Amino acid sequence: MRIVLDAMGGDFAPRVPVMGAVQAVKDFDVSVVLVGDEAVIKKELSKYSYPPDRIKILHAPQTISMEEQPSRALKKKDSSVHKGIELVKNGEADAFVSAGNTGAVMAVSLFTAGRLKGVERPAISTILPNLTGYTFLLDVGANVDCKPHHLLQFAIMGSAYAKYVLKEDNPKVGLLNIGEEEGKGNELAKEAYKLLSKAKEKGLNFVGNAEGRDIYSGKFDVIVCDGFVGNVALKLSESLAKILAKILKEEIDKHFISRIGALTLKPAIKGFKKRIDYAEWGGAPLLGVKVPVIISHGSSNAKAIKNAVRIAAEFAKSKLNEHIVEDLERFGKADGD
Amino acid sequence: MRIVLDAMGGDFAPRVPVMGAVQAVKDFDVSVVLVGDEAVIKKELSKYSYPPDRIKILHAPQTISMEEQPSRALKKKDSSVHKGIELVKNGEADAFVSAGNTGAVMAVSLFTAGRLKGVERPAISTILPNLTGYTFLLDVGANVDCKPHHLLQFAIMGSAYAKYVLKEDNPKVGLLNIGEEEGKGNELAKEAYKLLSKAKEKGLNFVGNAEGRDIYSGKFDVIVCDGFVGNVALKLSESLAKILAKILKEEIDKHFISRIGALTLKPAIKGFKKRIDYAEWGGAPLLGVKVPVIISHGSSNAKAIKNAVRIAAEFAKSKLNEHIVEDLERFGKADGD
Repeated sequence: MRIVLDAMGGDFAPRVPVMGAVQAVKDFDVSVVLVGDEAVIKKELSKYSYPPDRIKILHAPQTISMEEQPSRALKKKDSSVHKGIELVKNGEADAFVSAGNTGAVMAVSLFTAGRLKGVERPAISTILPNLTGYTFLLDVGANVDCKPHHLLQFAIMGSAYAKYVLKEDNPKVGLLNIGEEEGKGNELAKEAYKLLSKAKEKGLNFVGNAEGRDIYSGKFDVIVCDGFVGNVALKLSESLAKILAKILKEEIDKHFISRIGALTLKPAIKGFKKRIDYAEWGGAPLLGVKVPVIISHGSSNAKAIKNAVRIAAEFAKSKLNEHIVEDLERFGKADGD
Repeated sequence: MRIVLDAMGGDFAPRVPVMGAVQAVKDFDVSVVLVGDEAVIKKELSKYSYPPDRIKILHAPQTISMEEQPSRALKKKDSSVHKGIELVKNGEADAFVSAGNTGAVMAVSLFTAGRLKGVERPAISTILPNLTGYTFLLDVGANVDCKPHHLLQFAIMGSAYAKYVLKEDNPKVGLLNIGEEEGKGNELAKEAYKLLSKAKEKGLNFVGNAEGRDIYSGKFDVIVCDGFVGNVALKLSESLAKILAKILKEEIDKHFISRIGALTLKPAIKGFKKRIDYAEWGGAPLLGVKVPVIISHGSSNAKAIKNAVRIAAEFAKSKLNEHIVEDLERFGKADGD
């Protein structure tokens, strides 16, 4: 597999993407095309030894910043994102990875490569750790005003990703809601519940309503919601984990005996961090566009980038997009939809 | 102040409410009316010594369960919730506290006492700890489909509660959204932003959009959202804190040296728990109904109940409801609303 990696995307670009590319070609059976400012990438690459036939550079003179509006980003036709996605679209590479501006990557992917057949609204997803594994949540920000059948499409796409890329057998799909029982929720959730129930009759493993607590309970493999709720849930989760760690640290620092004891916790804290570390997952896909795209966290380290390259290769290899088109045809034609 | 306390509400009723009542009359200048099954309450009360003139019992033969549908609960006219709210409505007590079924308490309060003048949709709130204090979040479940001016009303009510009851000088109000800039968000958030901006010109301290991460950042004293998003945020927060603690404990148990060290952390963990403990806050108000009502967490301990009684007395003493009616008149008449 040949993965295009945005060398200019993320809080620590180009250093971290280049380091991640080097690690990826050493650890996995992939080759990487680093897209971005050629001179800058060359300089970074010169720090490492790596099999030279496995890393190429594609020059792209423009850069999209993390804060740039998607509408502005769309106009930068020579950006690393445009050039990278074009390469995949033209069949010269298999998937695209970026830790850059999510909204811009979404907009450029849509504009350059287009939507998959049957998809009305592509979605941004995220993978969140829970006690037993992970929960795959979508949409987390691409679609802030959704119709019920959009949530149905998210469920079908998310289920396919969990099955074909994350290798989850018969993934359990939930609808984010404010109560477990049927009939709970706002108008959107009530109507989406009906559509999902119909899709269940056709084979989608829709388990029912998931509450806020279920994002971390492990009872569901895939949870769908509109992008407004999903974005709030995602940002809330990231900040709460940080704030709890900070409060605990402040309290430990207050007590001498605890400061000493805390040293002995290092192995436990290391294990803890590994379990909640997004770097293990690498990134999460854009779903519903014609090219495989993985978006990594802006603050990704090299390990996260390396794993994102791996998951992008699995995305492409699994032929997920073909499965999504089939599944939309199979599950998505709910009556009255 | 004379506070009516639902002796039958909560996961550990009647034991915990009765214990909380005894602690409250000892610690604060309040008297408590315990409402519920008289024989059961008497038996519980007999375990304690307390000033007998400060705790009375009001018999209510019916009980509303935690799972009961509000529509069914409304029909139980002899429930502890009905009897308790009637007592406040009739002027024989100052405020009502329950750790019971939130939806039922909301429905009975509305039906029995009615809405405050100018309030279209009463709201359920919650208090969440952050690094420097707390964030007051509303609505968290009463109104799952909101109009922009409902969010404006939540902002006015929440700001008044923070100011008059929580004694926060000029509370900073935020609108829960998916980006900081004006123009971000779904249709509801965009329109609510405009109304809040107009109210700002009239003196409401609207600071701008709050993202999911700001629920814990401490940048806002009050954050408003529709009840669907708020409910997801609340349940997600509760579960994430628990799950992170559980993962940390599992990792500590894996390493002998960490198990030993963990013992020395006890004072720090105690401080940590105190800082994130909802029991310190006691409960959060129903806002927009004619009687002061505080709802405590279903799993409240006696300390939480005691503090809920205290905050209910402060709610009543502050004449918050009069301030809310005035503030709605002052800030709420946005043009075109």
